[in-house]
Amino acid sequence: MVSDTTRPNPTNRRFLEPLHGNPVWPPPIWLMRQAGRYLPEYRATREEAGSFLSLCYSPKMAAEVTLQPIRRYAFDAAILFADILIVPDALGQAVGFETGEGPRLDPITEEAGLKGLDPEATGEKFGLIFETVQRLRQDLPGETALIGFCGAPWTVATYMVGGQGSPDQAAARSWAYRDPSGFQKLIDLLVDVSVEYLSGQVKAGADALQIFDSWAGSLPDNEFGRWVIDPTRVMVERLKARHPGVPIIGFPRGAGGSTAEFVTATEVDGVSCDTAMPLCAMRELDELGVAVQGNLDPLLLVTGGEALDRRVDEILAAMKGRRFIFNLGHGITPPTPPENVTRMVERVRRSG
Amino acid sequence: MVSDTTRPNPTNRRFLEPLHGNPVWPPPIWLMRQAGRYLPEYRATREEAGSFLSLCYSPKMAAEVTLQPIRRYAFDAAILFADILIVPDALGQAVGFETGEGPRLDPITEEAGLKGLDPEATGEKFGLIFETVQRLRQDLPGETALIGFCGAPWTVATYMVGGQGSPDQAAARSWAYRDPSGFQKLIDLLVDVSVEYLSGQVKAGADALQIFDSWAGSLPDNEFGRWVIDPTRVMVERLKARHPGVPIIGFPRGAGGSTAEFVTATEVDGVSCDTAMPLCAMRELDELGVAVQGNLDPLLLVTGGEALDRRVDEILAAMKGRRFIFNLGHGITPPTPPENVTRMVERVRRSG
Repeated sequence: MVSDTTRPNPTNRRFLEPLHGNPVWPPPIWLMRQAGRYLPEYRATREEAGSFLSLCYSPKMAAEVTLQPIRRYAFDAAILFADILIVPDALGQAVGFETGEGPRLDPITEEAGLKGLDPEATGEKFGLIFETVQRLRQDLPGETALIGFCGAPWTVATYMVGGQGSPDQAAARSWAYRDPSGFQKLIDLLVDVSVEYLSGQVKAGADALQIFDSWAGSLPDNEFGRWVIDPTRVMVERLKARHPGVPIIGFPRGAGGSTAEFVTATEVDGVSCDTAMPLCAMRELDELGVAVQGNLDPLLLVTGGEALDRRVDEILAAMKGRRFIFNLGHGITPPTPPENVTRMVERVRRSG
Repeated sequence: MVSDTTRPNPTNRRFLEPLHGNPVWPPPIWLMRQAGRYLPEYRATREEAGSFLSLCYSPKMAAEVTLQPIRRYAFDAAILFADILIVPDALGQAVGFETGEGPRLDPITEEAGLKGLDPEATGEKFGLIFETVQRLRQDLPGETALIGFCGAPWTVATYMVGGQGSPDQAAARSWAYRDPSGFQKLIDLLVDVSVEYLSGQVKAGADALQIFDSWAGSLPDNEFGRWVIDPTRVMVERLKARHPGVPIIGFPRGAGGSTAEFVTATEVDGVSCDTAMPLCAMRELDELGVAVQGNLDPLLLVTGGEALDRRVDEILAAMKGRRFIFNLGHGITPPTPPENVTRMVERVRRSG
């Protein structure tokens, strides 16, 4: 059953329509990691900035890289350039990015380690991010929506506990098994801080929010409920109370068959789907009354040609007439030729 | 609807009952990677063997490590000790295992590379594996089933094309996008050789077979159909024609919501579920008429204690009365204390 969730969209930003319950066609389009290393202009700004975090904390340069893909492709939405690890960094758990190695943090593996995290200390660093959002809302074309974001508490915790990315998130899962009440304190702290962070982004001008739970797929069902669904549900509830009408997209990557439960329980307005989500399952998610976003394999943007065209067409055919936002199933990858992005955007925009 | 799939089990091996359509309780139990580094007796034999592949190709030592966990825990099934990369190694694509680094192969990234693979050359190496199976069938207790196995064509191909493990299997996926008909030839070759390999294991004494598709979860729906479902379906069809009554278990790891389609289309007798599969979804798979195997998080065997007991009880309660085989959702990990395995086995065996 399709629920009647149509709400007014106070702007002329097409991206927001599906999130307010209105299907529009051709569908709005943006790409995860659209500001990134596949663009020569990004690589130039990145080099100028020095470190990756300097780029995130420079409102001028972060706004510039956010705008670059909008200038090239006129995407329907821009997403704030930042990183999900801004939150632990601002809390006092310093984050470093080693070249080609991914992030490194001093791991926090037990409750005593939470003492080093100070929510009161986040103001300065969060302030720089909010300034980026303000600049963007001034500089973006009026029809381009601006998406704010953060990492979901579970996913951010996997890095804070593991000290780096890992294939199975064993460190965080292990703490959660060993001492669920201690781990809950870390998650609760992240819920509180992330709500403030996203709320600040809305006040600075974000039109919509996305919560990235990249490692949602590593948890058994009961743990998925406690560490993925519950914290997201609380965040959505609090953000909607403060900012009614600002839509929120969840991205429980890898959640597979549990995605429907996630959507229903968290009351997100939209759900982003990874590449493994079957198109028939995406239609079923739409029927729960949310906007569905996804899910082209980013590798097809590297491959290009007819393989790309064919899959774009399959996705469009499956989602036609639905509350749909065209996107990738994961972030765009550095070897992507920018002209393949042009080819895809034109194909989506021509779809009748 | 529960289909009537009950078939006679010609042995007294309890493990086979659920695969023949008969629920038994307490459920049979074995563990993926039950012969492995968490056992001191395994580490001793491994050291004696020298390299990992020498262990696989020594019938005497491979049989010994297969038997070790049966002696300790009296599992209901033993699984042949070997590796999914025996197939490319026997085909002539030499596999090396660097300490702590995982497997390394000279990658084959286009159709021309298939010339170096020779199905006729597999006899000698496969013969050593079959000899291990023969020894095992002689040495195992009469009530212990013996599982033969191989990697599914898709998963084996990801290593052959990538030259090593990778988080996203991009090399194989890229070939499949760029040149599907060339990649199909690799998959077809793997189907043919894997059927001969498994058929030889059955002739040597295996009671049941498991096909491991560890990277099934990295594919969009249409690619999942072509590279995961279709090759497995053909293998099951051919193996059942040759060896009626020998049950086959599929393990499409990470397939999430597509697992039901996999079960229906491939006609496997059993399906192994990873830790992310919700227990309610496992019950739905049982209702498709197959045995369901899984899916305790191996990390809980490291944690132990009440967290372990609680989850064991949840799984048992959810699957009670069904065609169920207790197992892990992934392989057992080296830091597992062997006494935690004892605790779990006793808990499963006591369940009324």
